[in-house]
Amino acid sequence: MDFAYDAKTEELRTRLLTFMDEFVYPAEAVLEQQLHDADDPWQRQPVLEELKAEARRQGLWNLFLPDAEHGAGLTNLQYAPLAEITGRSPHLAPEALNCAAPDTGNMEVLAMFGTDEQKKQWLQPLLDGEIRSAFCMTEPDVASSDATNIATRIERDGDDYVINGRKWWSSGAMNPNCAIFIVMGKTDPGADRHRQQSQILVPRDTPGITVQREMRVFGYGDHAHGGHAEIVFDNVRVPASNLIAGEGEGFAIAQARLGPGRIHHCMRLIGMAERALELMCRRAVSRVAFGKPIATQGVVQEWIAEARVRIEQARLLVLKTAWLMDTVGNKGAHTEIQAIKIGTPLMTEWVLDKAIQAHGAGGVSQDTPLAELWVAARTLRLADGPDEVHRMSLAKRELKKYL
Amino acid sequence: MDFAYDAKTEELRTRLLTFMDEFVYPAEAVLEQQLHDADDPWQRQPVLEELKAEARRQGLWNLFLPDAEHGAGLTNLQYAPLAEITGRSPHLAPEALNCAAPDTGNMEVLAMFGTDEQKKQWLQPLLDGEIRSAFCMTEPDVASSDATNIATRIERDGDDYVINGRKWWSSGAMNPNCAIFIVMGKTDPGADRHRQQSQILVPRDTPGITVQREMRVFGYGDHAHGGHAEIVFDNVRVPASNLIAGEGEGFAIAQARLGPGRIHHCMRLIGMAERALELMCRRAVSRVAFGKPIATQGVVQEWIAEARVRIEQARLLVLKTAWLMDTVGNKGAHTEIQAIKIGTPLMTEWVLDKAIQAHGAGGVSQDTPLAELWVAARTLRLADGPDEVHRMSLAKRELKKYL
Amino acid sequence: MDFAYDAKTEELRTRLLTFMDEFVYPAEAVLEQQLHDADDPWQRQPVLEELKAEARRQGLWNLFLPDAEHGAGLTNLQYAPLAEITGRSPHLAPEALNCAAPDTGNMEVLAMFGTDEQKKQWLQPLLDGEIRSAFCMTEPDVASSDATNIATRIERDGDDYVINGRKWWSSGAMNPNCAIFIVMGKTDPGADRHRQQSQILVPRDTPGITVQREMRVFGYGDHAHGGHAEIVFDNVRVPASNLIAGEGEGFAIAQARLGPGRIHHCMRLIGMAERALELMCRRAVSRVAFGKPIATQGVVQEWIAEARVRIEQARLLVLKTAWLMDTVGNKGAHTEIQAIKIGTPLMTEWVLDKAIQAHGAGGVSQDTPLAELWVAARTLRLADGPDEVHRMSLAKRELKKYL
Amino acid sequence: MDFAYDAKTEELRTRLLTFMDEFVYPAEAVLEQQLHDADDPWQRQPVLEELKAEARRQGLWNLFLPDAEHGAGLTNLQYAPLAEITGRSPHLAPEALNCAAPDTGNMEVLAMFGTDEQKKQWLQPLLDGEIRSAFCMTEPDVASSDATNIATRIERDGDDYVINGRKWWSSGAMNPNCAIFIVMGKTDPGADRHRQQSQILVPRDTPGITVQREMRVFGYGDHAHGGHAEIVFDNVRVPASNLIAGEGEGFAIAQARLGPGRIHHCMRLIGMAERALELMCRRAVSRVAFGKPIATQGVVQEWIAEARVRIEQARLLVLKTAWLMDTVGNKGAHTEIQAIKIGTPLMTEWVLDKAIQAHGAGGVSQDTPLAELWVAARTLRLADGPDEVHRMSLAKRELKKYL
Repeated sequence: MDFAYDAKTEELRTRLLTFMDEFVYPAEAVLEQQLHDADDPWQRQPVLEELKAEARRQGLWNLFLPDAEHGAGLTNLQYAPLAEITGRSPHLAPEALNCAAPDTGNMEVLAMFGTDEQKKQWLQPLLDGEIRSAFCMTEPDVASSDATNIATRIERDGDDYVINGRKWWSSGAMNPNCAIFIVMGKTDPGADRHRQQSQILVPRDTPGITVQREMRVFGYGDHAHGGHAEIVFDNVRVPASNLIAGEGEGFAIAQARLGPGRIHHCMRLIGMAERALELMCRRAVSRVAFGKPIATQGVVQEWIAEARVRIEQARLLVLKTAWLMDTVGNKGAHTEIQAIKIGTPLMTEWVLDKAIQAHGAGGVSQDTPLAELWVAARTLRLADGPDEVHRMSLAKRELKKYL
Repeated sequence: MDFAYDAKTEELRTRLLTFMDEFVYPAEAVLEQQLHDADDPWQRQPVLEELKAEARRQGLWNLFLPDAEHGAGLTNLQYAPLAEITGRSPHLAPEALNCAAPDTGNMEVLAMFGTDEQKKQWLQPLLDGEIRSAFCMTEPDVASSDATNIATRIERDGDDYVINGRKWWSSGAMNPNCAIFIVMGKTDPGADRHRQQSQILVPRDTPGITVQREMRVFGYGDHAHGGHAEIVFDNVRVPASNLIAGEGEGFAIAQARLGPGRIHHCMRLIGMAERALELMCRRAVSRVAFGKPIATQGVVQEWIAEARVRIEQARLLVLKTAWLMDTVGNKGAHTEIQAIKIGTPLMTEWVLDKAIQAHGAGGVSQDTPLAELWVAARTLRLADGPDEVHRMSLAKRELKKYL
Repeated sequence: MDFAYDAKTEELRTRLLTFMDEFVYPAEAVLEQQLHDADDPWQRQPVLEELKAEARRQGLWNLFLPDAEHGAGLTNLQYAPLAEITGRSPHLAPEALNCAAPDTGNMEVLAMFGTDEQKKQWLQPLLDGEIRSAFCMTEPDVASSDATNIATRIERDGDDYVINGRKWWSSGAMNPNCAIFIVMGKTDPGADRHRQQSQILVPRDTPGITVQREMRVFGYGDHAHGGHAEIVFDNVRVPASNLIAGEGEGFAIAQARLGPGRIHHCMRLIGMAERALELMCRRAVSRVAFGKPIATQGVVQEWIAEARVRIEQARLLVLKTAWLMDTVGNKGAHTEIQAIKIGTPLMTEWVLDKAIQAHGAGGVSQDTPLAELWVAARTLRLADGPDEVHRMSLAKRELKKYL
Repeated sequence: MDFAYDAKTEELRTRLLTFMDEFVYPAEAVLEQQLHDADDPWQRQPVLEELKAEARRQGLWNLFLPDAEHGAGLTNLQYAPLAEITGRSPHLAPEALNCAAPDTGNMEVLAMFGTDEQKKQWLQPLLDGEIRSAFCMTEPDVASSDATNIATRIERDGDDYVINGRKWWSSGAMNPNCAIFIVMGKTDPGADRHRQQSQILVPRDTPGITVQREMRVFGYGDHAHGGHAEIVFDNVRVPASNLIAGEGEGFAIAQARLGPGRIHHCMRLIGMAERALELMCRRAVSRVAFGKPIATQGVVQEWIAEARVRIEQARLLVLKTAWLMDTVGNKGAHTEIQAIKIGTPLMTEWVLDKAIQAHGAGGVSQDTPLAELWVAARTLRLADGPDEVHRMSLAKRELKKYL
């Protein structure tokens, strides 16, 4: 048992921390201004493109991809502390490093399951940060925590597949730069529970696609990320060669992306919590009330101590989960993956709530990143299935030991 | 001891509930659409004006004002259950009934302290719902929970007062219909702690006023309410007759409006919590997951039960506080006013969080009112001083019994 | 709506508060010493008998019994604030006033359902405080929250009933002064769900009764109350005339005692919480750490404020429940009775936890009443059915509004 | 970074788990019975002596002592998972392995600071499990979280030291087998803050020592551990050679024992939480309510899942703390030692509360170990300083980064 990061991780952490200080944090206000001034809030913001160029120049690029051919070849345990650092500025850093969801999951899927042709056409420009992508899975009318509920149809018709259905919360799809959707649907509703679904590549400009509206989270549009869209697929026709991996493989592909997806989210949440704690401390030492810095107030001290305890605990479980994924595989790490999905968003939400409270009215406003970070953490208690579903599932596995 | 509403209250509740069903709830989607379609989100939305006309026609108007000459002449205890009902649709109902903050407080102040001339010029059009108003108290650079921190100056210069300072969170001030500001500032920084401040009427179009920006709360602009503004007063000159009540009366006037202001907020919060519980129940009986309505899930049932218990407890303390204000005055009700300020926003926030969770991703979006209601509740843990300041103050009073 | 106690209540409160100050609080240390010195911890402690004599002399006797013929003729709303006061010293005051469970419930049952002979033989000595009684309902092997689970049999045999079964948590039954048990069992397991059960009077010295052991709660024996016993009934034979009300009436009788029982518990819990808050404040102003009274620490202040807010809210809901029971009956008050059963023990447990923490190690010891009070509150989250069962039931009623 | 235990730890874990199954768990009921039947609850229970002999035979002895000369020579990181296992039966296993507080700390102190003569006379019989010891530090009249508050005097008088003072919570001192006290007191009240204190060996039978009473925790006497005593030292005279390390070294010695002491407590708490979770799961799958095992209830599932998440997080932070103590020393691990002192008792208390609730009334009684375990966890929120003091201290260190 050893709790020190390895040399490669330490080296990358050092470089990434420097990149954050020199380029990312200063860009936060620039992005805010560019979004504010933009005629169309969905257009690409120049500051992000500059950050991407710089990150690529520095070799801080595609760190998430364990596949050494296409990505950085890091283990989950090596990538996790880097993802944490990007979480400190989650609206800039992940995309700057080409490590932003849902592109990361889509690139993983293409790297693992894509044909050479699919890789050339879609994986390469994604790896190069030239286009973005969306993953169209969640549907408005059914509980998505159960994949058999999916209603979207993908039907074979000659050399094509024809897609019909309605998706929402398709992240990134409002972005004009989003060129490709990976769509989950049913090719065979009569097959076994987990063989009904397939995934297929659908270029965004295919006829029959209507982006109906943006979904807002609390009051935010998540513009920097390309928003979240509700999309109707009305007889959308793509060549059969766009299918990924084969009919009936949709559920397995979705499972494959879940583990890494969740651990990336959780690592970034740790970084968000660290950012919140830092801002809370900075505020506490500088803000004076009743004649003394609020850092001298017992209640504020309690928040800070409790935040530190909770962050340390949560981080270690995320890191152990990454280690388990590396050593025994995603299946062997199932309980831990679920545990961090349950515990980390709640922890980060709690720290952010206290940081907001320490900032007074400014904390709920646009003057700090706290309110928007809070929304991100809160939303992750629902994304990929609500906490309650994960708790139920984890409990059933725990109970099985005694049956 | 008697827990039944009196006959007058019951009669008004019945009428108001009908008004909500017939006019307010149906108008919610209309307002959303009008705000969405508006070129300028700050312009007056027609649907609100229609609601105001209808409410006035029905005599559901200015219910908040205890002064029978200008208002409905209700006690706090009679008005409280009505305010609760308006809280079920807080972006429409309070303003529809001309009972929205900060106009309510401003009208109270003018009714109590205004000269005849001030009443004629500003109170009457406010009572008629023709104009709106703002209260400019909070400042960005100091902890406003301590009134002696106020930095804005109101200086006598011949027959005028000249105002210099910076305010933020001036609610309603983004509204083009907002015609008058009541501004708190210091006329005599050398006087006793609570005699330094004065309040003065400043028409919005007075030269030297710059509305610099809107303050956002968790992404929302609070457009229906006229937003929250940051305002600079740069040598703003108004006639000396615009002063309210006299130099040095500012703190006392502020105190006078606090009690009613807080209890109105708290009653509306009860209504918000009831709305959330209703939406949670409706969702629970209609949403199916894993083959059964989620109403059959133990965790959802626990939320619902716990919400009911907390709402009932909180409502009774708010009502008792109203009764105390009526019977022993705002000072005698000091502990209880603080207790509801502490307890009610937290309770409502909790119920809303669970209601959101029961709605899944839709709960954080624009598809239910829940996310925006949550923001309103969360913000009230900071507005009028953070919870922590109120807890400290309440505790000191409790401890005094043993000194 | 009126939140003031009526004149009769105020008068009794004043007298009872004086009685507490003059007799009860000083007796606490005496009882502790007498229990410590006793050869048999179950024997009657002299100090309790003295208190009973004094209370009776002062007319503070049987206040719980609404039946004016046998008791004080108070409404629930009038009795509630008095029960609260007795809760401040729950190991002495309730019994001193002959208002201790389970005698109260047993006396109510006998007053309502007993024959003249039963009243003469058992109700009168109970009303006189000469004997004590136990209620034998809970069984170790089944979930008692569902009355149909009861396994104890009461079978007719000639002019007798014969009882077989095992009960536990029969409160008061370790007391040598406990002369009579009311036993719940099944006379007809084939009848309708709620007509299978009967209740029967069983003198403690009837052959076939074995008190097997005492049940302990967190290390305590609850000696002052006569403990909690596990009892075996092995062919226990009593005359048929000992049956209460009639065969199949057992469930209805149990329901009749539940409402008052719960509200008495909840009112005493409010008193326990008030006692805890008082002790916490006294400790806070007198205990010095790091050079200042701990009353100056923000965290302690937060506990005190929060305790005050929670106590006020909980008390009002208990009082409203009493008022509902008086005005619309126990059935009409069903939701509220359940709500206070859920909310009050948790609240009191919370306040006690903080009071203990403020006392340091002394708080968990015998040097304050806090630890034992905590155990009483904790246990009431399970007694009469765990919180979870009540939440489930309350939620189902709430959900019915939307079905 | 590596989350696997090393080979030596794994081997010892396997042996210890077997020892628990074969000897410790079966002995729990035996101990309960022996304590119940004992004339004097403080006498040594035979079952414990048998367990000690067996553990020693198996080489599971003095595992806590890093000093390879006297103990097992394990690192903190190696010992931690073993201490966790003993925590599953905390009233038997730690003492069975001669790894129980306060002996462990006392042995560490003697091994590190004792003279050869002191080691021979006191360390050896402690290492052999022949005698037990007490650590007399806490005093009733002052806040012990500040060592300068200590009032007990240790004064030089010729070749002797004379001790006067009052101690309480001297754990183990009620045990007739407890032969030696280590007493903390002031030799020089005028010296620097942390040079005023000394520690001295005081044989229990020295004249002038009066064990005044046992301190109870909630209702428990902690008999298996030798209880907690209040002790008066009245002109207690011991040879000067009984002083440990030298005058003024008392604070430094106390600090030296704190780190290991806390981590041992925390590891055992993890084991207690695991035991609670296991009992909760076993109960859940076997107890039927409303026709189904309570394991099917959503609320019970939520407890189980949440318990698993919290235990995993807490364990990792304890292990990392052990690793830090091994690699950078107790001082370098200061923040983490404090963090686990804050977080672990609360976590374990929470899990135990849910396990109790799942057991119904049996959970608060002597029929499961849960209630007594709960008391142990609760008490550790106060022992070695209340949580609040540790939070304050940790927060100040966190805030220093920003000053």
